[in-house]
Amino acid sequence: MSHRPRPDDAAAASAFTRTLVDLATRTAREPLPPPALHATRRLVLNWLGCALGAAGDPAVQAALRVARALGSASAASVVGHPDRLDVVNASLVNGIAANALDYDDMHVPTLIHPSGAVVATALALAERDHADGGRFLQAVAAGVEVECRLGGLLFPAHYDQGWHISATAGTLGAAAAGCLLLGLDADRTAHAFGLACTQAAGLRAMLPNPAKSFNIGKAAAAGTLSALLAEAGFDSEPAALEARFGLFDVFGWPPDPVAALEQLARAPQGPWMVEQASLKPYPCGVVIHPVIDACLAIAAHPGFDAGRIVRVELAVHPRTLVLAGRVHPGDAITGRFSLFHAAALSLARRSAALAAFEAEPVDAADLAALRDRMVATPDAGLSPGSCRARVTLDDGTAFDHDVAQPSGSPGCPVSDAQLQAKFDELARRTVDAEAAQSLYVTCMRLEREPDMAALAAGWAARPAITHGE
Amino acid sequence: MSHRPRPDDAAAASAFTRTLVDLATRTAREPLPPPALHATRRLVLNWLGCALGAAGDPAVQAALRVARALGSASAASVVGHPDRLDVVNASLVNGIAANALDYDDMHVPTLIHPSGAVVATALALAERDHADGGRFLQAVAAGVEVECRLGGLLFPAHYDQGWHISATAGTLGAAAAGCLLLGLDADRTAHAFGLACTQAAGLRAMLPNPAKSFNIGKAAAAGTLSALLAEAGFDSEPAALEARFGLFDVFGWPPDPVAALEQLARAPQGPWMVEQASLKPYPCGVVIHPVIDACLAIAAHPGFDAGRIVRVELAVHPRTLVLAGRVHPGDAITGRFSLFHAAALSLARRSAALAAFEAEPVDAADLAALRDRMVATPDAGLSPGSCRARVTLDDGTAFDHDVAQPSGSPGCPVSDAQLQAKFDELARRTVDAEAAQSLYVTCMRLEREPDMAALAAGWAARPAITHGE
Repeated sequence: MSHRPRPDDAAAASAFTRTLVDLATRTAREPLPPPALHATRRLVLNWLGCALGAAGDPAVQAALRVARALGSASAASVVGHPDRLDVVNASLVNGIAANALDYDDMHVPTLIHPSGAVVATALALAERDHADGGRFLQAVAAGVEVECRLGGLLFPAHYDQGWHISATAGTLGAAAAGCLLLGLDADRTAHAFGLACTQAAGLRAMLPNPAKSFNIGKAAAAGTLSALLAEAGFDSEPAALEARFGLFDVFGWPPDPVAALEQLARAPQGPWMVEQASLKPYPCGVVIHPVIDACLAIAAHPGFDAGRIVRVELAVHPRTLVLAGRVHPGDAITGRFSLFHAAALSLARRSAALAAFEAEPVDAADLAALRDRMVATPDAGLSPGSCRARVTLDDGTAFDHDVAQPSGSPGCPVSDAQLQAKFDELARRTVDAEAAQSLYVTCMRLEREPDMAALAAGWAARPAITHGE
Repeated sequence: MSHRPRPDDAAAASAFTRTLVDLATRTAREPLPPPALHATRRLVLNWLGCALGAAGDPAVQAALRVARALGSASAASVVGHPDRLDVVNASLVNGIAANALDYDDMHVPTLIHPSGAVVATALALAERDHADGGRFLQAVAAGVEVECRLGGLLFPAHYDQGWHISATAGTLGAAAAGCLLLGLDADRTAHAFGLACTQAAGLRAMLPNPAKSFNIGKAAAAGTLSALLAEAGFDSEPAALEARFGLFDVFGWPPDPVAALEQLARAPQGPWMVEQASLKPYPCGVVIHPVIDACLAIAAHPGFDAGRIVRVELAVHPRTLVLAGRVHPGDAITGRFSLFHAAALSLARRSAALAAFEAEPVDAADLAALRDRMVATPDAGLSPGSCRARVTLDDGTAFDHDVAQPSGSPGCPVSDAQLQAKFDELARRTVDAEAAQSLYVTCMRLEREPDMAALAAGWAARPAITHGE
């Protein structure tokens, strides 16, 4: 809960905004290297799958009803719906949809969902302006770069104080993506960043409810609006990060501002942040993934019988218990943030796929009984991506499994084939098999797509399901 | 710069949100008493004058171009323009306009501009739904009540940390006004408050630039969106003030939460906050007003000659120097927040009216020279509304004037006639004299207006000036 006040050497660290603007315009100056390009394509595909999968989600539907009633124009499409909205409202609804199932990507070192707001803004503006796929991917990579680097300056104090960092840093990332697509120069981009800083918002109190995803959608809408206003000549504070009463003064300064600025300035020499994102194989909080990996491995063991479990002992990183330590979740959303529920599904149903999470209520009797037999212990010696699991049966047989890095993480990535299977499961909640396949192929060669407006045809033309609107 | 962490007795203070919701629905349960009714009418009139006067402001124009290009629907009008927009964008542009000239109202104890965002939201929704004037005034009074009471819980730590409190608390106020107009019950209002809390934003770094007014417009747009989403069934955290990682955890708790809650619960027994707002007689920072009063009084003295001033000594509240201590402002916006510039205008031009502020650049030679002869001293024994002034001429003659409460404050209010003159000066930048007179009459009996949609006819039908669009 610490808040770092303005440092004495704030003047020495006065170039944060300019450095971040440089970073944002990096992709306009140099092409994406192949690993970053492929990582960006995968992020976009995963984002699209999540949004297609959530097209029928009640929160998405409510937001869409409101946006529709605002009677906005038809510049941009809504993923999984035939609707077309203005670019701000399209950013809002698509940003909500991308995050609604908690299946979107995650930058574990900052707990940011990198693509959530960034892709929503980039998609809306790219579609409106008929940008090509290469430019769209550049904008996404630039946005992710800005939000994760900024997030690295703010984390963990900012998150620990209660800010939903995907929304606060995401507003800047979305603005960066928007500025690149609009072709704004560094001066106008700095004004857009100022407008984004003064809109940065989002409380962690919303994480257990649908406003969690609203935070992401709102970050996208605010980022889009920031870019549009800056383009229209609306001025703000062009050094908003380091200004008196600017972002750092209000949200907290990095512990060593001068070192942090130097590190930010060196960012272009390192790998792209798009390559650092985890793509989730399971639709739940990323901190739970090591536990799922371990429990699925144990459940797959010959001779294992979940009905005979007497004890489950889990050792996890302390933050995992803070974020996902609810033993008996009350509903589907909190179920996706309960390591106990995920472990029970993995052991008793041998699956933590979307279908397993959605097949039955979280209070199913055998799952709840199994959760009561679990003990989870914090171990500060473990990394956030690792865990130790031991499951003991009624005859004393014990199964042990340790996880060093979870599936989906940069060190243990899901394969393109696994990603395609995940995308297909999500997309087919909304479109038919042929459309899902076509969207997959398009996304995986998106830099060759001449007009991003064509992408929407993939879901608008062939809906498999209408969402009871 | 202090941030108050979650208190040990947070559970005991767990009813903040519900109490604030009660307050918000107060006007739906009981009619406004005559003083509150008249105060609300005056706030609305003042808001309308400010927005009409700023219709040609570059920031308003830029925001309007963006909102127009979003191609939104025609539910609500834009003050001083023939455009019609959707209610969210109308809230945004009108909120910017109301604050652009720094001539809008001020609740001095919290430094909140009470009407800025609240009236923008209430006007858009009242117009869309053809609400009557009485209901509109109730919504405005409810919104002002919520934002100023909440502001009282957050001020001064929240403001001192760098938050633009008119924007943060204003988002809740605008949401409250919107909920009342939409007829939401307490449960849905609580969800709207949650959505407003998670959108609360706005940095003081923007105060010297046009994004200052954007903060107000954005608060209005966020408040409107919160009410619309809650109405559409979008859920959030319904106890967002006191929830873990909610508004107070993130923005700072009141020093004594239990006492603060008791005070909030007693609010309905006290006067309405609309009666506590200052209506500015001068278009500049309210903390400067005592200095202007003193300097105008001295300049009106027989035998006074500004050309012979050798020294101006001012003693002011310490915060006045923090907020308005810039001796030589660089442009018109910062000129409106320089007590030295305002004192120079008052002494040398014998006026601090809008025309005086706008007649010449802030670096006019005689004004700059006069500012160099001024000394302003902080005096912690003075209240924010008081000052002491001594002006000495080259023959040794000294003129003294002390101000105990500034013109425009609740203790020394502008008369209805003065308010009409101010409104007329502002409105006639955009509409003709007859329309200005008609709008004045309508506002001053607004509770008898059967359809708020008729109000826009007052500027839409007879523009005196088109703003070069």
